[in-house]
Amino acid sequence: MTAPLKARVTIMLKDGVLDPQGEAIRHALGGLGFAGVSGVRQGKVIELDLAPELSGDAEAAKAEVARMCEGLLANTVIEKYAVEIL
Amino acid sequence: MTAPLKARVTIMLKDGVLDPQGEAIRHALGGLGFAGVSGVRQGKVIELDLAPELSGDAEAAKAEVARMCEGLLANTVIEKYAVEIL
Repeated sequence: MTAPLKARVTIMLKDGVLDPQGEAIRHALGGLGFAGVSGVRQGKVIELDLAPELSGDAEAAKAEVARMCEGLLANTVIEKYAVEIL
Repeated sequence: MTAPLKARVTIMLKDGVLDPQGEAIRHALGGLGFAGVSGVRQGKVIELDLAPELSGDAEAAKAEVARMCEGLLANTVIEKYAVEIL
């Protein structure tokens, strides 16, 4: 019996896709007096608790989470994702 | 002259705060046939490009980004944040 794994998926807009939410944050930081920020990109992070049947093999779990990203979690037209197994 | 630093801020709801968005993702994954997920939490990730005047000292940059989190980026009543300097 192995301990249940967790997976962390980080989803960001691809480079070159405009990020108005990040731009709004950059502007708000400037307005608050935080001068040292030249660019901001905002994305999502999704933490998944994997059930025991997925927790035996980290490589297989990573591949399954990548399938979840392709099928539901990320819009791969404009977003890129990264999967980490914790 | 040092290379500009990047900072990554990860903001998650605190444990114990209900996460309906994560719950919706868990439900949707189940509906698509992905059975091996027992829990989902969704959060935000914000990547900051730090200007040269903040990039000289990683510890000082981390402290400044933490101040940005306290002042704008995170709602510390219900959210926790983590700062990484990349």
